[in-house]
Amino acid sequence: MSEKKRTEISELGEFGLIDRLTSKFATKQNSTLRGVGDDAAVVDAGNGEVLVISTDTLLEGVDFDLTYFPLKHLGYKAVTIGVSDILAMNARPEQIMLSLGVSSKLPVEALDDLYEGVHFACEELGIDLVGGDTSASMTGLVVGVTAIGRAKRESVAYRSGAQLNDLICITGNLGAAYMGLHLLEREKRVLRDVANPEPQFEGYEYLLEKYLKPRARKDVVEQLAEEGIVPTAMIDLSDGLASDMLQICRASKCGARIYLERIPIAKQTSALAEEMHADPVVAALNGGEDHELLFTVPLAMQEKVMRMGGIDVIGHITAESTGAALVTPDGSDIRLKAQGFKED
Amino acid sequence: MSEKKRTEISELGEFGLIDRLTSKFATKQNSTLRGVGDDAAVVDAGNGEVLVISTDTLLEGVDFDLTYFPLKHLGYKAVTIGVSDILAMNARPEQIMLSLGVSSKLPVEALDDLYEGVHFACEELGIDLVGGDTSASMTGLVVGVTAIGRAKRESVAYRSGAQLNDLICITGNLGAAYMGLHLLEREKRVLRDVANPEPQFEGYEYLLEKYLKPRARKDVVEQLAEEGIVPTAMIDLSDGLASDMLQICRASKCGARIYLERIPIAKQTSALAEEMHADPVVAALNGGEDHELLFTVPLAMQEKVMRMGGIDVIGHITAESTGAALVTPDGSDIRLKAQGFKED
Repeated sequence: MSEKKRTEISELGEFGLIDRLTSKFATKQNSTLRGVGDDAAVVDAGNGEVLVISTDTLLEGVDFDLTYFPLKHLGYKAVTIGVSDILAMNARPEQIMLSLGVSSKLPVEALDDLYEGVHFACEELGIDLVGGDTSASMTGLVVGVTAIGRAKRESVAYRSGAQLNDLICITGNLGAAYMGLHLLEREKRVLRDVANPEPQFEGYEYLLEKYLKPRARKDVVEQLAEEGIVPTAMIDLSDGLASDMLQICRASKCGARIYLERIPIAKQTSALAEEMHADPVVAALNGGEDHELLFTVPLAMQEKVMRMGGIDVIGHITAESTGAALVTPDGSDIRLKAQGFKED
Repeated sequence: MSEKKRTEISELGEFGLIDRLTSKFATKQNSTLRGVGDDAAVVDAGNGEVLVISTDTLLEGVDFDLTYFPLKHLGYKAVTIGVSDILAMNARPEQIMLSLGVSSKLPVEALDDLYEGVHFACEELGIDLVGGDTSASMTGLVVGVTAIGRAKRESVAYRSGAQLNDLICITGNLGAAYMGLHLLEREKRVLRDVANPEPQFEGYEYLLEKYLKPRARKDVVEQLAEEGIVPTAMIDLSDGLASDMLQICRASKCGARIYLERIPIAKQTSALAEEMHADPVVAALNGGEDHELLFTVPLAMQEKVMRMGGIDVIGHITAESTGAALVTPDGSDIRLKAQGFKED
């Protein structure tokens, strides 16, 4: 390797890596309706329906820390992460497959807990577990999730359909999962050398739940169907508003204006951010893991969207040349930037 | 955890763990035709067709050793492993999704190599890459593979359809991948402290190829279709003949008699086994990773199967009460036993 050119992954930036790796792959199968570059792959099922398939891998030490992440919640969250990708395509989740890599040191009871969380989530969402592979891991716990959903071909919401002047809508609120993670990390640090640790979470239960046990927004996709709304573009908020908005802009070849004061932030998020001398807007923009939905609809849909409840319109789509900007209350523009090299 | 009951994973055996974890999951979706317990999940696509979806996770240090496994071959093999599960359902592979966990220390050129192998395999098999997610890993390289295929509903070969007196058929030969792995491990051990190692692989190139770059047997599934054969049961030989035969016996509620002298073993496999004072039959029974196909057909299909070429009939299906046995040339029976806790 010594004489070979060496490029750091970080040099390529968030979009560069996946482009470089996948650009020479051409589509050969007629059934492939969408490949790389969305929340999930879209495969033609025939007679007007499509199957939507997503895959995620959660790694111990990167995506979760077992010192404070209960295995039952991890099982639940793994299902949420998979299903959220399906929902982001405006599809109905139907099946989930799990592929675990576990150390033989882990007792079976630990896996029982994990599967209990998976079961709970499957019951709540009305979906089936259709694969449950377990193999040995020499390092940490690895959780692979494949989710499968179904939609009418014309109802699928890709990242690429946003149009000029479309409204940018968001479900729930942002930054809560990120602040929940920071709270857990703080208590872990503080209590490292304490014999009988009693972490202080009072008043921040909602943040912990958003991080440890986020719910997939199946209700939103059902409401969209009831209102007859097909979003022009949609994405799962897993990497933070900035990064995920940029994904839509890039796929749709458009810009965006988001108004800072319209970004929904929960009270507990603001309170903990204040306590930690952090900016809740930064948590919302860069935090990720909220698993809310970010979508765009034509201006004419505004009334219908407001009728759904729990949806905030935070901005609108602009021309590609204007880029993606955050507008502060004093009217100045801040350019949105993506974080990290995570690509999903 | 100290007061909780603690059960070791090894106590439950190969079949026990997955049964325990998944037994309380009931199927709710009409589209779920087959869930846990086969090479792949089967989902109804409508109008007589099904989609078949499999998922696998390959972990550095468990499934591959990067000190001797070229990344290009690893990419190729990952595709083979995914596609082989689809073929084992008697389905046509159409798409593949990749989900990588990589250390940021790995240069982009290493990922280029891996994707080059993926690309080569996709071209060879005529399938599309439809997902190529890359995220950070703190430990080793993690390769998640999801494969998607399609079949007529009535052509799907499950593990559960073997009938009394069916012929047990096998493609290619067994034990070669296992001996290839042992050769690589031996050279690694021998050359550990050598400055410019020159491993000795002469005469064993086929074994290395079977381990490092196994081909998915798409040709076999195509030939089966040409001959109008739908196997009564089929499985991908990933865990060794003993374990995979037992999977069919268990799913089909039957027994099996396999004749030791009929198990196809390549010359290089026997030669290296002799050199290493090992038994090539043990490699065939317990080795795994050959990614050949093991299938059963009714007795009446014998002529058609022989016409295909490259298929060996190694035994026949018996009643469940007789169990699964290996018959040695002197006529004595050895009971088949599964190895390890790997469940795929």
